[in-house]
Amino acid sequence: MPESDAVIDLLGALAYGELSAFDHLADDAALAPTLVGRTQMSALAAEEFAHYEVLAAQLTALGAEPEAAMAPFVAALETYHSLTKPSTWLESVVKAYVGYGLAADFYREVATFVDDETGALIKDVLSDAARAEFAVREVEAAIGEQPAIAGRLALWGRRLVGEAISQTQHVLADRDSLMLLLVQGTGDLAGVAALITRITDRHGERMTALGLDS
Amino acid sequence: MPESDAVIDLLGALAYGELSAFDHLADDAALAPTLVGRTQMSALAAEEFAHYEVLAAQLTALGAEPEAAMAPFVAALETYHSLTKPSTWLESVVKAYVGYGLAADFYREVATFVDDETGALIKDVLSDAARAEFAVREVEAAIGEQPAIAGRLALWGRRLVGEAISQTQHVLADRDSLMLLLVQGTGDLAGVAALITRITDRHGERMTALGLDS
Repeated sequence: MPESDAVIDLLGALAYGELSAFDHLADDAALAPTLVGRTQMSALAAEEFAHYEVLAAQLTALGAEPEAAMAPFVAALETYHSLTKPSTWLESVVKAYVGYGLAADFYREVATFVDDETGALIKDVLSDAARAEFAVREVEAAIGEQPAIAGRLALWGRRLVGEAISQTQHVLADRDSLMLLLVQGTGDLAGVAALITRITDRHGERMTALGLDS
Repeated sequence: MPESDAVIDLLGALAYGELSAFDHLADDAALAPTLVGRTQMSALAAEEFAHYEVLAAQLTALGAEPEAAMAPFVAALETYHSLTKPSTWLESVVKAYVGYGLAADFYREVATFVDDETGALIKDVLSDAARAEFAVREVEAAIGEQPAIAGRLALWGRRLVGEAISQTQHVLADRDSLMLLLVQGTGDLAGVAALITRITDRHGERMTALGLDS
């Protein structure tokens, strides 16, 4: 299989990830208790859409139809979102930071296995500095007022990881090109295990930044 | 009352209009029968958010808190949206074009009554060329397949105007600064009537472009 199949798959998965993130963040913005929170969550959504546009343009430049490239990943991503639908504003904030962070770490790892142009593009569209600040501020303030909330949000963080891993496995089991890219890129299964450890460690750091157990 | 009160009100109303349009268009994107339609509607939503950001920045530059400036207009705009919640994809497309076009025409008229900087900013954030093309294509294709739909969409267009006028009247009755701006800007009540006629005419042109009776 040519490498470009894996690149199209990778960009397609990431593009749909951004499009669905846009959609769900825009929804979640409605949970905000203040207009300030709502506009910040909406800004994250709009940013995801801008990323989607960059990725769709690159797919088109590579001769792929963005919709066709995204189609194989719609079910897994929508399943992830439906299983991790926030029921409170804080859950949505933690998801925006922790869930997105997990996905971004995964794509950043995989970006090192593809050609430089694709790798640079992927790293470019994944940046979560602004959302870290926003999430930490919201969650810290809430825990300050109501310390008991920390336990529930820690559980929520674990659920986000669990569902993300589960859907990633479904996608990899389905898409040989991506599975091969991952195994060949990391070298072997021990390499895959090391990658998972790195991603899990960074997830732990994000939870710690929020003042939550991971 | 200083002119700047009216300017803050105007920018606040428009900013919340963009923010709520973002929110509702992002929701409506989920009604799309295809990923192509969904991304186009999402693109409109993201564009509204970009406009919101420009308006919020200008409010801040004028020394106003964007959230405080928007607050007086939240109820009227949310009422408009809840009374015109699309139940089909085509209703959402017509609303995105016709409803937005109506609002844009109104703001463009009022933009001529304020200082040049504010006026230019308002005209800048209101541009509906892309959405016209998109709406006309979607509605034409649907009517081609199912001519009976035209009657229902024409009624929908009338409902959009009716609710928009009704909510605008509520806002004007509530905000002396805007009412004065409108009456002084048009010269007198006959001027207001002429403005309404111009807006209604342009609404008719948009409905005609969609192949619908107005």
